[in-house]
Amino acid sequence: MNSPHMSLEEFRQHGHAAVDWICEYLRTIETRPVRSTVAPGEIRASLPASAPEHAEDFSACLRDFENIILPGITHWQSPNFFAYFPCNGSPPAILGELLSAGLGVQGMLWQTSPACTELETHVLDWLVDLLGLPAFFKSDSTGGGVIQDTASSSALCAILAARERATAGRTNRSGIDRRLIAYTSEQAHSSIEKGLRVAGIGSDQLRLMPVDERCAIGADALAEAMARDRRAGAVPFFVCATIGTTAANGIDPIRRVGELTQRYGAWLHVDAAMCGTAMLCPEFRIHNDGVDLADSWCFNPHKWMFTSFDCDCLWVRRRADLIGALSILPDYLRNAATESGAVIDYRDWQIPLGRRFRALKLWFVLRCYGAAGLRQLVREHVRLARLFADLVRADERFELALDPPLNLVCFRRRGEDAINQRLIDKLNAGGKIYLSHALIHGRFALRMSIGGTWCEERHVHQAWRFISETEP
Amino acid sequence: MNSPHMSLEEFRQHGHAAVDWICEYLRTIETRPVRSTVAPGEIRASLPASAPEHAEDFSACLRDFENIILPGITHWQSPNFFAYFPCNGSPPAILGELLSAGLGVQGMLWQTSPACTELETHVLDWLVDLLGLPAFFKSDSTGGGVIQDTASSSALCAILAARERATAGRTNRSGIDRRLIAYTSEQAHSSIEKGLRVAGIGSDQLRLMPVDERCAIGADALAEAMARDRRAGAVPFFVCATIGTTAANGIDPIRRVGELTQRYGAWLHVDAAMCGTAMLCPEFRIHNDGVDLADSWCFNPHKWMFTSFDCDCLWVRRRADLIGALSILPDYLRNAATESGAVIDYRDWQIPLGRRFRALKLWFVLRCYGAAGLRQLVREHVRLARLFADLVRADERFELALDPPLNLVCFRRRGEDAINQRLIDKLNAGGKIYLSHALIHGRFALRMSIGGTWCEERHVHQAWRFISETEP
Repeated sequence: MNSPHMSLEEFRQHGHAAVDWICEYLRTIETRPVRSTVAPGEIRASLPASAPEHAEDFSACLRDFENIILPGITHWQSPNFFAYFPCNGSPPAILGELLSAGLGVQGMLWQTSPACTELETHVLDWLVDLLGLPAFFKSDSTGGGVIQDTASSSALCAILAARERATAGRTNRSGIDRRLIAYTSEQAHSSIEKGLRVAGIGSDQLRLMPVDERCAIGADALAEAMARDRRAGAVPFFVCATIGTTAANGIDPIRRVGELTQRYGAWLHVDAAMCGTAMLCPEFRIHNDGVDLADSWCFNPHKWMFTSFDCDCLWVRRRADLIGALSILPDYLRNAATESGAVIDYRDWQIPLGRRFRALKLWFVLRCYGAAGLRQLVREHVRLARLFADLVRADERFELALDPPLNLVCFRRRGEDAINQRLIDKLNAGGKIYLSHALIHGRFALRMSIGGTWCEERHVHQAWRFISETEP
Repeated sequence: MNSPHMSLEEFRQHGHAAVDWICEYLRTIETRPVRSTVAPGEIRASLPASAPEHAEDFSACLRDFENIILPGITHWQSPNFFAYFPCNGSPPAILGELLSAGLGVQGMLWQTSPACTELETHVLDWLVDLLGLPAFFKSDSTGGGVIQDTASSSALCAILAARERATAGRTNRSGIDRRLIAYTSEQAHSSIEKGLRVAGIGSDQLRLMPVDERCAIGADALAEAMARDRRAGAVPFFVCATIGTTAANGIDPIRRVGELTQRYGAWLHVDAAMCGTAMLCPEFRIHNDGVDLADSWCFNPHKWMFTSFDCDCLWVRRRADLIGALSILPDYLRNAATESGAVIDYRDWQIPLGRRFRALKLWFVLRCYGAAGLRQLVREHVRLARLFADLVRADERFELALDPPLNLVCFRRRGEDAINQRLIDKLNAGGKIYLSHALIHGRFALRMSIGGTWCEERHVHQAWRFISETEP
């Protein structure tokens, strides 16, 4: 019987070719149109209607990857990509993904690959120090960190831990039995509302608080809402504060929010998905003041810390809250290590059971950049955002929608929303840059999100030239 | 300012070295002790207490990967790994992960990389044909497929879609307001109970039905339970049937279960995580009889179809049910393509917002093996399981715990549970093979799970020799 497997020698050759392809892709990425302009269905129309009956050579796959798939790719790694938030890879992270796939371990339990669990715990302890987070988040204290796929999943886990804490574990057993109320700002990420829906609590139980002129949550309004709900017999159980909202990079006052969650016994979750990385630099930690009041805190190395998607780091103050909410131990997973209590089983820290070895890429990034290299890049991106904001300020046809706190600049042409909608459509159609939009205080703004792995000063100048020379 | 980035030329060299490392690893993997024998904390003790301040060369990382991490790895890709279920990689899947990391796209919306979405839709349509699934699961009908990380997440999505269908979307808005009851067998995966907890419904609302001698759900007991709950005013809203339970590879009678879900208007979810791959072969589709009654069906290419973790495929009969339960559209994600209704936005088909390009590895696997190559491997693994079962039957000291329907053989030494516990401990301590256990009809059994990418007849003979020669 012929082996249907690719031989290891073939794998070696194709692997080298794939690595070379990535080198060439990254070398030339900035010359490509950033955003794919294919029409719906265009990619599928180039693919055969059914799967091949017989094996094909990988070189045919690589050819189709280049000819069919690539035209349908929007180049997130391009230094001209300024849309949404960055979703950064980097050479060490890619190597981490490669070796992780090569090992192919499944780390649901400590026992199923001790290094997969221990490296994750260790690197997340490192990050507590690097980011200046409270020591209670460390694994040798009451807390601990875990890698989730996204901040959405972290928010859901935090909501579930908060729900079970507020109901003494009754909801897991018998379902929702009290009126639980959650709070966040009207500019918070949609994952908070989604998480409340998933958790069976419902959107109606989420209070979206108004924001102030800097797009931060209004703490007075929050205080009033929590008091009102408590008086009405409901349970204020969860507040999400954001460090770097999606629309505008708004930064909520963590300390003031935390004082309220303490007063009401509610859970404080801090969603620092975008701007948590800035805490590598002591000068930006002012934005994290009050973190000592948080029950959970997450940030995305896959956004601004050059660690390929998916990699969100979640810390909890008391791991018992998280494990209590998420642990189920069927007989077929029982083992001596788990029963000894001496190990972490990360399946109890997340929604899925299985998990891949994601700590590897994070470890490689931390080592290949070093803390100093990461700080250098973060400071450079913040400098570039300020530089871009100065260019906007210096052109009287334009205005800032608000002062950029860190690496996101929201701006617009003075005038109607329609002008700005036309402007962004023209800019994005050209393929030279890619921006996205936001509504800020009800008005349309263009978002210039700076933080891509390969973004340098010349890309920001180039972008501004193109923006300022484009007639809407 | 010095660039803190690894240069592309360095990346090329390290990338080649990493590919070579994987070749050598896979070439020699069967000579390694399958299961890591490190003690809790041993890996961490070899790692520095804090992250490096300055950048290190990647070659240092690769060295530590080899010297520190590898001893803590349990080798899931070893042909001597027979524990749990397989979690298979393969050369084309590894290449898919590599190129996916190289592109670094984030496919939350069609617009954010059309090819990422369209290839996924396309390959999942291919699989509907390859697996002999009903046409309504295809994207040109009412349904469609999506890649989830794990079957746990698929189960949760199915539960949420069922919950919203049963409550006309009210739960998402205002929380649980009715007594919803779910059903599955007592041998179903723990993710069903976990999903009900997450969804705010609670464990008490899950009926774990007894199984028959073949470890399949008892349909009569299920019929009675559903009738009783309906009479009591509760809403039977969700049933999970399993094709290949974790403990014993039990296969529920999908058609009989489906007739009940139809009668009560409940959602039928089929968890074929393990054995769905067998549906590639027409002769095994008898185990899927009744799938035309399913509302959702999932299987894990990362188990038996050689597609590196994470890759679970979920199909739904009516995509509107899933999207209705999971969609949230904040302003910052609005775009013309989404509003046209002509595209799929997979963020609405899953819990997280972001997603990586996982269809690539699945496409490469389907092409590099071809349907014929995949069927050949599945048939070979089933043949090896039968061969192993024959070896057990031929040795009077042993007995089968039940006849193996496909690729999992549950067996034991005749005698006490304690003897078998000693036997498995001895076997696993040696490092030659790795098995896990199950309780079947209340008695301890060893599980010989056959289906690893590199498992051949000689590994099965070798395992049996070792098992039969080991005195408990």
